[in-house]
Amino acid sequence: MSKFWSSMAKRTEPYVPGEQLDKANILKLNTNENPYPPAPAVSKAITKEMERTIQLYPPPAADDLRQSIAAMYNLAPDNVFVGNGSDEVLAFSFMAFFEPGRTIRFPEITYSFYPVYAKLFHIPFREMPLNEDFTLCPADFFGAEGGVIFPNPNAPTGIYLSLDQVQEIVENNPDQVVIIDEAYIDFAPESAVSLVRKYDNLLVVQTMSKSRSLAGLRVGFALGDPTLIEGLTRVKDSFNSYTLDRLALAGAKASIKDQAYFEQTTANIIRTRSWVSKQMEQQGFHVLPSQANFIFVRHEHIAAKTLYEQLKAANVLIRHFNKQPITDWLRITIGTDEDMEVFFEKLHKLLNEEN
Amino acid sequence: MSKFWSSMAKRTEPYVPGEQLDKANILKLNTNENPYPPAPAVSKAITKEMERTIQLYPPPAADDLRQSIAAMYNLAPDNVFVGNGSDEVLAFSFMAFFEPGRTIRFPEITYSFYPVYAKLFHIPFREMPLNEDFTLCPADFFGAEGGVIFPNPNAPTGIYLSLDQVQEIVENNPDQVVIIDEAYIDFAPESAVSLVRKYDNLLVVQTMSKSRSLAGLRVGFALGDPTLIEGLTRVKDSFNSYTLDRLALAGAKASIKDQAYFEQTTANIIRTRSWVSKQMEQQGFHVLPSQANFIFVRHEHIAAKTLYEQLKAANVLIRHFNKQPITDWLRITIGTDEDMEVFFEKLHKLLNEEN
Repeated sequence: MSKFWSSMAKRTEPYVPGEQLDKANILKLNTNENPYPPAPAVSKAITKEMERTIQLYPPPAADDLRQSIAAMYNLAPDNVFVGNGSDEVLAFSFMAFFEPGRTIRFPEITYSFYPVYAKLFHIPFREMPLNEDFTLCPADFFGAEGGVIFPNPNAPTGIYLSLDQVQEIVENNPDQVVIIDEAYIDFAPESAVSLVRKYDNLLVVQTMSKSRSLAGLRVGFALGDPTLIEGLTRVKDSFNSYTLDRLALAGAKASIKDQAYFEQTTANIIRTRSWVSKQMEQQGFHVLPSQANFIFVRHEHIAAKTLYEQLKAANVLIRHFNKQPITDWLRITIGTDEDMEVFFEKLHKLLNEEN
Repeated sequence: MSKFWSSMAKRTEPYVPGEQLDKANILKLNTNENPYPPAPAVSKAITKEMERTIQLYPPPAADDLRQSIAAMYNLAPDNVFVGNGSDEVLAFSFMAFFEPGRTIRFPEITYSFYPVYAKLFHIPFREMPLNEDFTLCPADFFGAEGGVIFPNPNAPTGIYLSLDQVQEIVENNPDQVVIIDEAYIDFAPESAVSLVRKYDNLLVVQTMSKSRSLAGLRVGFALGDPTLIEGLTRVKDSFNSYTLDRLALAGAKASIKDQAYFEQTTANIIRTRSWVSKQMEQQGFHVLPSQANFIFVRHEHIAAKTLYEQLKAANVLIRHFNKQPITDWLRITIGTDEDMEVFFEKLHKLLNEEN
């Protein structure tokens, strides 16, 4: 604490991201990054942009990229907002649509950045308990006073809520904004993007960090009714005119163009997820049915924290949340088949030592 | 307005940046970009980083870049905060150090983003009138209730306040944060960085957009006492874990290494500024004494708005602020000698047509 800090700085409880160890021989399965490199067109586009005009400010409205994203989803550019990763898009959404004094709702087990934003911007919140199988109960989110936000698939469980159920939640909050955080949707059955034209209170947030292999480039976006996009734009233009640099804009646009590569790498991960899930069950783990690029698991008798630490000592990073009620669980990112073979080799060794 | 907007979104009055026309044959002297490309090492470093790990999240604390900046100024890494352009650093500073209900002070004529931040975050402010020659009166900023912010050199005037006078303002606000926005300091005599170790209430904000030719890469930073840096970091980590992408981090670091290139290009601009200022006076303009990479001028009898529009029609963009009390003035970025020859050619033509 410092006498110079504002009340806002004092009340923050910052989010702690997964470790980014810069060690060459580490197997990194802790932050849900994509094990495949981005589409080859990305680096070409960045090289070209770099040779052009890096000394000039980027286009502040990012029209080109917004147009590409709109076209991909059969929407108009004024349905699209882009930001510096979906975290920035979420932060702007809290600022633009949630109100101090009006209680929002999100699941009790969810992306742990939501309560951080809420505390920063003084938004009261209710954490709705999940069912025993970690599914969420749609009716719990009907008629929320100040709005709703949840990830679909949920994090860190990986559990997916059907489009019908998402729609029910949107319909039952006609005067509040419902934000669906679809960071992992490309590994799941169906996006809520198809509902954007129908509901003026729905905001869908996505990222290029996972399915597009661009975590290092920081590109996220939101899709919604033009009045919601205008709200986000007003807040952004009161905060930072240019949130996406020229290279990120060029790289993201190129990534969208290569749909075949995107489909191929996404299918690979889904296939590997299925194989890994079965293997984990055979190793004595309870595995939640994941529709994301990670799995959420609990071992029958070995403590999650112990296993996390043992794997870390063996140069494998996975994610453990030291937080009730998920302290018994571990989140493991799906890598390539080769990554997961290395993972299982080290895991077997640890499990055998335990016995 | 929309019923879905928060009171924050409703009260915003967004900043309007200078136009970014993507036309090939335009002479762009409107947003104070550097006419020289960045140091050659920048694109090499970016290419190298791109081949490495763009699918992985960036290091959230940006240790490497913070270390480079600290070394450049003979400070420690915990004196350095980095962000997505100095605009983001300023936004976080308003959040971390200024308080709703406590009035801050800034000059009446200044960077027009300050009132935008203040409205967004509900910070009351007093705009202190400048002297007739556009210099600011240091005593006006003593004992500010909620803190002080001003650019040095000031924008859009280009007028520089001596280090002694800056120090007086810092000393006379011992319990409030004084933010010196040094976006243009590399074109001026002396930075307040030398005072950072002495005053725990001083925050110096700089950018790589101007003197480092990296406007398109979005890198800014703040220098201050470790408790101030910690305040900024807490706010940033409650907003967006990774605000600088991997390519921006690599490019910025490489830029700092090439000190010779930086000195050369900066000296070029200062030399051109001197020549351009004299020329403008000969053309019937009143020119404020600038220590920035732009000049602020007023013609004896031609209206500023008219001249701005005529130059725009002739494919030369300069900046006109349609705002009292500077509607009679024009801000012109200093380009290369060749740029400014083209500028004068077109200007002469217009001035001759006027007569």
